Amino acid sequence: MYRPEIKTLDCSIRDGGLINDHLFDDSFVKAVYRACSLAGVDYCEVGYQLSKKQYSPGKFGKSKFCDEDFLREVTAGVPNGAKIATMVDIGRVELDAVREKKESVVDLMRVACYVKDIDKAIDYVKHFAAKGYDTTVNIMAISTALQPDLEEGLRQLAETPVKAVYIVDSYGHLFSEQVHFLVKLYRQYLQPKGIEVGIHTHNNRQLAFANTIEAIRKGANYLDATIYGIGRGPGNCPLELLLGFLKNPKFQLEPVLEVIEKEFLPLREKIEWGYIIPYMITGILNQHPRSAIALRAGKDKDKYAEFYRGLVNDREAL
Amino acid sequence: MYRPEIKTLDCSIRDGGLINDHLFDDSFVKAVYRACSLAGVDYCEVGYQLSKKQYSPGKFGKSKFCDEDFLREVTAGVPNGAKIATMVDIGRVELDAVREKKESVVDLMRVACYVKDIDKAIDYVKHFAAKGYDTTVNIMAISTALQPDLEEGLRQLAETPVKAVYIVDSYGHLFSEQVHFLVKLYRQYLQPKGIEVGIHTHNNRQLAFANTIEAIRKGANYLDATIYGIGRGPGNCPLELLLGFLKNPKFQLEPVLEVIEKEFLPLREKIEWGYIIPYMITGILNQHPRSAIALRAGKDKDKYAEFYRGLVNDREAL
Repeated sequence: MYRPEIKTLDCSIRDGGLINDHLFDDSFVKAVYRACSLAGVDYCEVGYQLSKKQYSPGKFGKSKFCDEDFLREVTAGVPNGAKIATMVDIGRVELDAVREKKESVVDLMRVACYVKDIDKAIDYVKHFAAKGYDTTVNIMAISTALQPDLEEGLRQLAETPVKAVYIVDSYGHLFSEQVHFLVKLYRQYLQPKGIEVGIHTHNNRQLAFANTIEAIRKGANYLDATIYGIGRGPGNCPLELLLGFLKNPKFQLEPVLEVIEKEFLPLREKIEWGYIIPYMITGILNQHPRSAIALRAGKDKDKYAEFYRGLVNDREAL
Repeated sequence: MYRPEIKTLDCSIRDGGLINDHLFDDSFVKAVYRACSLAGVDYCEVGYQLSKKQYSPGKFGKSKFCDEDFLREVTAGVPNGAKIATMVDIGRVELDAVREKKESVVDLMRVACYVKDIDKAIDYVKHFAAKGYDTTVNIMAISTALQPDLEEGLRQLAETPVKAVYIVDSYGHLFSEQVHFLVKLYRQYLQPKGIEVGIHTHNNRQLAFANTIEAIRKGANYLDATIYGIGRGPGNCPLELLLGFLKNPKFQLEPVLEVIEKEFLPLREKIEWGYIIPYMITGILNQHPRSAIALRAGKDKDKYAEFYRGLVNDREAL
């Protein structure tokens, strides 16, 4: 029997936009929202709500800011539309510019933070909850978090109105045993307060889907995925794989297959993501992918062995 | 602590050759054998030993037949070279043409069969063992095997000189729980006789590496992989990912990265394998990939939704 508590969240636009500064055509965003809605996906994360003082609207696309007009335009006319999510980063949002829930189509505000910033994330959660939103906290780079710090953060989060707290494997480093450990640890603090555990994986080692399944098996109920795995670098858990696993009959695979062939294949010709060796290497080494991103932008983009030697030598020099 | 019993086997040439009728240049085969040897891989499967009466040497490459001269040529001059494996299919080999082990560089003869042909596979195992070879039996399409038939086969295999019996997820359909179940079932019959369990995965649902890890966790010690995941359709467990997981210090990642950048990237421009949606669909539906192979060869190769509808409708018509 499937678990009706499971919520799927598509973050194709938000996470995929990190590849191209969110410079998607409106028609692409609409197609993604429509496909998610038809597929029965619970939430579609249409972008960030970041500060226009810090990010120039001339340089970044509309999904970096998610003005209310934009959100209404790209989500209009879809029957039984997916709920709408947007994300904020710590210190990169104008809190006062975020409307009251009753004036917005946004349902869910997601706060991304590192372990060290959980106190700030809690302030944001309280702020957005007071405005009427559901909230999540997405703890990034979890594979580098020290356990006592993480436990202190979870203990504090358990006392907030947050709906779900995410394990975010930013570096694509976790194996199933670590996923099991983390879901159990999160649940120990959060379950008594009715707060759900979420999982957001990166695909550096081709484990994004597998680790999402392992998190489900251990009780995670908020599941992030992206269509065709789009996302910066190696990308994310592919939504089509996740829907092929979940048993709830409300989920439909076909709308996702259609939007892949019509929208994602042409896009993939222009921007890259997926199984690319330098990201596999940063995943193995439990590092931020910035060195791999830099490599892929230059002429040595396929010099894998040299890249690997360089990173390993860097580590030896500490 | 790592398990010294673990044996890695690279089947890049043998399995990858199913894409291109084994029409590899000798230099490519040499590069693969050299990379595997430098990386500390235990076995390199250089191809099949199939009947020249059934497969025309004009149409298929040398790795379809693995003549002794060819094997000696492509494996010469590599210090501490990997052991050499070749595969046979039931009914497609001239048993008498296979030399005695003492006249061959081959160490391991692998017999691929479906559950229904295990009796024939056992005859082959006895024949090759009598000639002095180590042997494995690779039970294909395990996700469609009926458990009583499989158990009867395992019971019989336990009484033979076979070194390892493989779980082969030919259709890329298994999840971790099924892998756990199968490894346990195999071990129940084989472990008392000192016969090892092997795992050979296909990557239809991006679970080839994850399922290989899960098999390791449950006690499988013979691990198949291919460089850059090469293999017909979705391909196999990528060797570079497997080596990035295994703890035995004898394994080296760098030689594999080098051969990927020098040999596999150019090859991937000419022949396709990897995460391709029609193979994901046959994986979900637990089917042979032949329909996806046919689709990819035609003009509708990216009509994913239509392909999916067709296969689902086929199923409804039974």
